[in-house]
Amino acid sequence: MSSTAYLKLCERSREVYLLRSVAAVLSWDLETYIPSKAVPFRADQLSYLEAKAHALFTESSVGDWLQAAEQLGFDPGSEEGANIREWRRSYDRATKIPIALVEEFEKTRTIAREAWVQSRAESNFAFFKPHLGKIVELTRQKADLWGYQESPYDALIEDYEPGITARQVKPVLEEARGALLKLLGEIRNKSVPEKFLDGHYPIEGQQLFAREIATAFGYDFAAGRIDTTTHPFATSLGPFDQRITTRFDSKRFEVSLYGVMHETGHALYEQGLCPDRAGLPCGDAASLGIHESQSRLWENHVGRTLQFWQLWHATACRYLPDLARFSPADLASGLRRVTPSFIRVEADEVTYDLHILLRFELELALVEGRLKVEDLPEAWNARFYELFGLVVPDDAHGVLQDIHWSLGSLGYFPTYTLGNLNAAQLMAAAEKKVSGFSDELAQGNYAPLLKWLRENVHQHGRKYLPAELMRRATGESTQARYRVEYLRHKYLS
Amino acid sequence: MSSTAYLKLCERSREVYLLRSVAAVLSWDLETYIPSKAVPFRADQLSYLEAKAHALFTESSVGDWLQAAEQLGFDPGSEEGANIREWRRSYDRATKIPIALVEEFEKTRTIAREAWVQSRAESNFAFFKPHLGKIVELTRQKADLWGYQESPYDALIEDYEPGITARQVKPVLEEARGALLKLLGEIRNKSVPEKFLDGHYPIEGQQLFAREIATAFGYDFAAGRIDTTTHPFATSLGPFDQRITTRFDSKRFEVSLYGVMHETGHALYEQGLCPDRAGLPCGDAASLGIHESQSRLWENHVGRTLQFWQLWHATACRYLPDLARFSPADLASGLRRVTPSFIRVEADEVTYDLHILLRFELELALVEGRLKVEDLPEAWNARFYELFGLVVPDDAHGVLQDIHWSLGSLGYFPTYTLGNLNAAQLMAAAEKKVSGFSDELAQGNYAPLLKWLRENVHQHGRKYLPAELMRRATGESTQARYRVEYLRHKYLS
Repeated sequence: MSSTAYLKLCERSREVYLLRSVAAVLSWDLETYIPSKAVPFRADQLSYLEAKAHALFTESSVGDWLQAAEQLGFDPGSEEGANIREWRRSYDRATKIPIALVEEFEKTRTIAREAWVQSRAESNFAFFKPHLGKIVELTRQKADLWGYQESPYDALIEDYEPGITARQVKPVLEEARGALLKLLGEIRNKSVPEKFLDGHYPIEGQQLFAREIATAFGYDFAAGRIDTTTHPFATSLGPFDQRITTRFDSKRFEVSLYGVMHETGHALYEQGLCPDRAGLPCGDAASLGIHESQSRLWENHVGRTLQFWQLWHATACRYLPDLARFSPADLASGLRRVTPSFIRVEADEVTYDLHILLRFELELALVEGRLKVEDLPEAWNARFYELFGLVVPDDAHGVLQDIHWSLGSLGYFPTYTLGNLNAAQLMAAAEKKVSGFSDELAQGNYAPLLKWLRENVHQHGRKYLPAELMRRATGESTQARYRVEYLRHKYLS
Repeated sequence: MSSTAYLKLCERSREVYLLRSVAAVLSWDLETYIPSKAVPFRADQLSYLEAKAHALFTESSVGDWLQAAEQLGFDPGSEEGANIREWRRSYDRATKIPIALVEEFEKTRTIAREAWVQSRAESNFAFFKPHLGKIVELTRQKADLWGYQESPYDALIEDYEPGITARQVKPVLEEARGALLKLLGEIRNKSVPEKFLDGHYPIEGQQLFAREIATAFGYDFAAGRIDTTTHPFATSLGPFDQRITTRFDSKRFEVSLYGVMHETGHALYEQGLCPDRAGLPCGDAASLGIHESQSRLWENHVGRTLQFWQLWHATACRYLPDLARFSPADLASGLRRVTPSFIRVEADEVTYDLHILLRFELELALVEGRLKVEDLPEAWNARFYELFGLVVPDDAHGVLQDIHWSLGSLGYFPTYTLGNLNAAQLMAAAEKKVSGFSDELAQGNYAPLLKWLRENVHQHGRKYLPAELMRRATGESTQARYRVEYLRHKYLS
């Protein structure tokens, strides 16, 4: 009787997954090919599907099955135990918030996003301020309902990085900050000129080269495709359908190439999940911080290297003849240009995490009530000057640049830096454990790296919490020092 | 209380429509861009959605609402009356067949389709025979359960052409047959040589020209798009999302151009339905025979004419310079080449309906039990010789060429010819009723024609049964003589 409860949960979980995968197809089309007038009805279709999926998973019968399944005595380390743990987390999070608050939050988000767009266009925080105030207030209500031990922030980050707390993540990020600032001081003058790599790079050549690289990394085009969008992304439309998108700039080949490498990293993770477990937690990605580690790993550790260009220079020149002006070493240095700047999404590898750390500090203070929304721009600008030595010229280049807070996603930002730290730590572990690792990479044989990632990260899905997954793969939970070593070696040697 | 029932039906009808529109997005992607390994899961997604839609519309509460709504005394000629009439038809058809029979039919169809593919590849009817036998048997069971007055065929055609019967359609089709055979005898020797128009037509030029023509006809690209597929189609993904597809042959520009005109005709109909009524019968197309009239009208009456080429020749030559070898008159005659041939989908405008009439006679005899499945190939070949004067060389060029019967779609074929007849009849009516009609068309001003179609056909949706819709638009139900006159004028003058 009671193992029926577990099977019922599996069935329901797969049904919810199917509905969300249907929504993923509609969202992909919305971003790629939809005609403009069809957008409003598409929004209706998507909210219908999401409401159905939500309702299916929050029915009281699901709660009953969960209670029964928890009595079955599955080993917490088993697949069944992990599935039950993850269903419990999702169920509690989905049901602890009263419908009225869910609706108020959704309404607030929608209005806040519109306000943010206008506010950013006018570079005027004042207009966005009351909306962000409301979002912070409602977010704190949600955190209280979800519950936490120390900081309301813990209840928020749980959505993106299960099992981690502000107290755990803070020292790691602070260590990274100190080391990055030190490194930045040491390398600032080595920078190559702005626009050093700019040239004439026909889109078709970029497309073909990017496809060849994605294939070389191990991306399976029979289970995916690359399309063009304004904002690149990777998405999973089902167990064998991991699509990526990119954008093209005919003067800057690196926009599409490194964009594709990044999204390929995400897609390789999804292609490495167990298809038989699709729809169950153990068939799903572990966390955003683990997901981001895969994209950064392929983009930066594999692709943004001298080794990569020594190997691929000739091929790249066939597709993009204007690259023949550069030696592999020129290309590698051009792609390692470091310079403090205002906008996160345009930042280089070294300063990127400083942008994240700024946001983490501020959103933590907002959520914990130590910072008022009205004081946010001033706090942003002061801290920005401390970290980057630059004076923020206006709110559009400062506190208004990111969409995340307007969407109500507080607690999301640290996962970007966790991804970077995890990437370096995983690469260091792979190097130690895979024999001939560097030689294989130098020869463009990426299979041993992918195989190691598949075995140590991908195949487990959500079986382990992110910290445990990292411990199993690398011997310790997420640390800053691997990334620091990686950057120092790459940017100082 | 009881007008609540009508509102409940509207709401349910819109929900079912939304689910089917979601499935339409998934089907469109399945035909256009899906990666190969994603196909099996896509099938799961689609059958889940169809099962949900079916279940929603066949719940007993729908039957209760229908009964209550029928008591409200709406005028049968009103929009409400028409919606109720159409819901009743769909509900009864969906609920009169026991689930066991539905499942058996689905299973039989799936296996029969596989068998048909193999049977056609080997050009051997014997292999397909038992499967077709089973389909005919189950189809007759379904017809008995649905009920009919005279012929079981009436219960089948109802799915595609509501309100029509075999007794009504037969004399019209027979009149067409006689007239077409006579015409064919008269024009046979006027044919232009095979491959007369073949040349070098780059795909990109074909794409641009096809887009320009679709736009000129009135197709709204902000509510649609054109993609490339092996089998061209038009599909509606929502009230403002009418997409079409086409295929390209770089030697034969007419494949894509007339394909796009045809699908544009379908899409213009859908773009002319009332978006506020989306999801209600009055917001849906009237029938397949009316739908096909719109595609044939734009493809053949507007596009396959000397007038069209006199107007568009210069533009066409800009996109496809190899067309400059031909005068407008050459092009028009090349596109009017008539010659009896074995394959329906490659047939010209004059012989096309003879292919349909052959299929109608045979499927009627099968369904009425006057012809045994084992005697079908012989009957096909004998009748084909009578109609076309050609000896069918093998089953692949004869009885096995179409997919329809293997899918269990008996009763579908006549709608192709009804579409042709309706197209000619509607054009004749428009010519009478729109002032300066021919001059406008000759100048490429297609708006008056589209406006007339919108007012007399599109905007009504399913408010009227097809025969009544034709009577209101043209003064009489579907007749053969308009098409006969059109073809005689086009092919003999």
